[in-house]
Amino acid sequence: MLRLEQIRDLATQTPSKIVLLVIDGLGGLPNPDTGKTELETAHTPNLDQVASLGICGMVDPVSRGITPGSAPGHLALFGYNPIEFTVGRGILEVLGIDFDIKRGDVAARGNFCTIDNNGLVVDRRAGRISTEKNTELCSELSGITLDGAKLFVVPVKEHRLAVIFRGYELVADVSDSDPQKEGLGPQTIIPHSPQAQKVADLANEFATRAKAVLANHHPANMVLLRGFSQHPDLPTMEYVFKLNAAAIAAYPMYRGLAKLVGMRVLDTGPGISDEFDTLTQHYSDHDFFFMHIKKTDSTGEDGNFSAKVQVLEEIDEQLPRILKLEPDVLVISGDHSTPALLKSHSWHPVPVTIYSKWCRHDQVREFSESACSFGALGRFPSAEVMPLAMANALKLAKFGA
Amino acid sequence: MLRLEQIRDLATQTPSKIVLLVIDGLGGLPNPDTGKTELETAHTPNLDQVASLGICGMVDPVSRGITPGSAPGHLALFGYNPIEFTVGRGILEVLGIDFDIKRGDVAARGNFCTIDNNGLVVDRRAGRISTEKNTELCSELSGITLDGAKLFVVPVKEHRLAVIFRGYELVADVSDSDPQKEGLGPQTIIPHSPQAQKVADLANEFATRAKAVLANHHPANMVLLRGFSQHPDLPTMEYVFKLNAAAIAAYPMYRGLAKLVGMRVLDTGPGISDEFDTLTQHYSDHDFFFMHIKKTDSTGEDGNFSAKVQVLEEIDEQLPRILKLEPDVLVISGDHSTPALLKSHSWHPVPVTIYSKWCRHDQVREFSESACSFGALGRFPSAEVMPLAMANALKLAKFGA
Repeated sequence: MLRLEQIRDLATQTPSKIVLLVIDGLGGLPNPDTGKTELETAHTPNLDQVASLGICGMVDPVSRGITPGSAPGHLALFGYNPIEFTVGRGILEVLGIDFDIKRGDVAARGNFCTIDNNGLVVDRRAGRISTEKNTELCSELSGITLDGAKLFVVPVKEHRLAVIFRGYELVADVSDSDPQKEGLGPQTIIPHSPQAQKVADLANEFATRAKAVLANHHPANMVLLRGFSQHPDLPTMEYVFKLNAAAIAAYPMYRGLAKLVGMRVLDTGPGISDEFDTLTQHYSDHDFFFMHIKKTDSTGEDGNFSAKVQVLEEIDEQLPRILKLEPDVLVISGDHSTPALLKSHSWHPVPVTIYSKWCRHDQVREFSESACSFGALGRFPSAEVMPLAMANALKLAKFGA
Repeated sequence: MLRLEQIRDLATQTPSKIVLLVIDGLGGLPNPDTGKTELETAHTPNLDQVASLGICGMVDPVSRGITPGSAPGHLALFGYNPIEFTVGRGILEVLGIDFDIKRGDVAARGNFCTIDNNGLVVDRRAGRISTEKNTELCSELSGITLDGAKLFVVPVKEHRLAVIFRGYELVADVSDSDPQKEGLGPQTIIPHSPQAQKVADLANEFATRAKAVLANHHPANMVLLRGFSQHPDLPTMEYVFKLNAAAIAAYPMYRGLAKLVGMRVLDTGPGISDEFDTLTQHYSDHDFFFMHIKKTDSTGEDGNFSAKVQVLEEIDEQLPRILKLEPDVLVISGDHSTPALLKSHSWHPVPVTIYSKWCRHDQVREFSESACSFGALGRFPSAEVMPLAMANALKLAKFGA
């Protein structure tokens, strides 16, 4: 695979348009009663039509056998090798709450916790306080001012919060304050490299001040921080692919991942049809659209086979709305498999179909795991989907002379 | 592919069990009379059943077009990239004679040779002395004591021997004493790096002393050494995969390769059924079993097509004994191809099938080169077999969040 800088050398801006439809957790496992996966069970004439007209294959988001999280699964589909480009836990936490993270920011995940008179943690989750209480306490903690960085303290849910430090030359390479078990005190945060001293100092200062602020808020009388990480500072899709890219996603995490690669995030509603409305409304404004459908993954995680089938059928019903726009390239795939039988993300490869006027279509007539295994694209890393999409949009020049 | 340290971060210890059955030199070429390979000719209903229930593909041990030796072929199946992790000739020689090589040891292959009165080599093989004579002379040479290292001189076969140096901070990066042709004298061993000075000194001292010991043993009146190499100090399978791994192999070389990655080697008998007995006896003691069948390779090397077919049928008859144990994951493959028509290892990819409850089986109904080429695993490097086996055993956590 070419490096991003090499792709950039080949990428050209043209009026052609690409739509990347990501069906989260798309791949499944066969229902033991029928021998058919969720996708094979669903009645999906429109997906099957795209597969018939397009070229199909199976993608591995990371590599064979590796179960991807949402971040590597999406970065790969955006064209970024997910082994080379990683997103830390703290950053992911703030993406999930729609916090507008900036390049250079350092983020940590946190818990409100209970400490006793000796300063030892007696409950790592502060009795799972309500989200309302959490919000109120985060607002108090936001009053803390630090020397050398702007501080954001943002509620997540129940006892969970996120802390963001914004300043110059921050390096996130520091240890956790969370001791990960009760009976120990919050740990001093230690820099793992000399450059990280400033972040360690800021975080320790924040912890000291937070303890004072929370002193009278038992059971939430302290915070524990972990997973300090930095905005991954990825080259943007505009830089690499020369695309004016937009994201349509109902869930914050995926809007956040799209923002990490510089996509413009479009406002959309909570339903599947809302996302298709948004695509139609903004179709003339961009040359690349990432559309994200979450519910296939959530129903898979719930182990609800038939609900996942229904979501797939709902997507299929909406699909003609994309076809009517006649994008030059339509890519349909998933960020990973989420088989209802496993109730979790899995390592199984994911069907992909790429339709364009120039795709050299294959014999596959059905968008399914079994059929796409015989597709002419073969089995390949998800990070090669974007070069294929770009090529089919006639946006990639010749490599070498 | 992830690095081993990254796999380690994901690996979890669970009670599930993996059996890796390696059929040495499994792949073949079609008999011109029938158009069928050895595996396609053999009547193998049980292998076909596993292929039907499992997911199939073709593996390249090193990469397309590269014919692997036994070491890279096996390291790849154990999950170690054979381009990154190599085993030197001296080390391989001592593995083949069941010598208990330790981390830090330096080993060289050697020949007894004949030198004339001027000290020039007149016969590099000392008239191919008998193994008995070799054993007697090695015993005499073992009396040599060296300053700074323990010495082992071990007979191999006919004129061949191995020399092992055991000491602190030994570095094997030295030249050969073997001039590789007659008419020249044994060469002074030269260090290729300053750190290797100690090994060069030890080896030269040994050569001088050996010449004195052997003075009256014409034609075996000198030794030539080559292929100095070091225990490769591989991370163990316990370290990387958190597996308690056992090896069942009738031949020393494969026991040795298994020991290099920290497997416990189980005592077994010389026959194929003996290995299956051993598996059954020890099945409760380990969570990973590497079983090695040699005779498919030896019959292939002999160019004996029908004998290779027979060995495959013998394996097939024993296979239900594994199935009865109901391992969570069963992997069947080979370390390389050994087509009887070529009478040697070859570059042809090797069929693989992985069976587990979670494998998402494909359309392949026969364990053969032709059928597995259409398998949903596609064609991939052997080193990805272990991540797949681990995933299917539900022993790998999610990569990234």
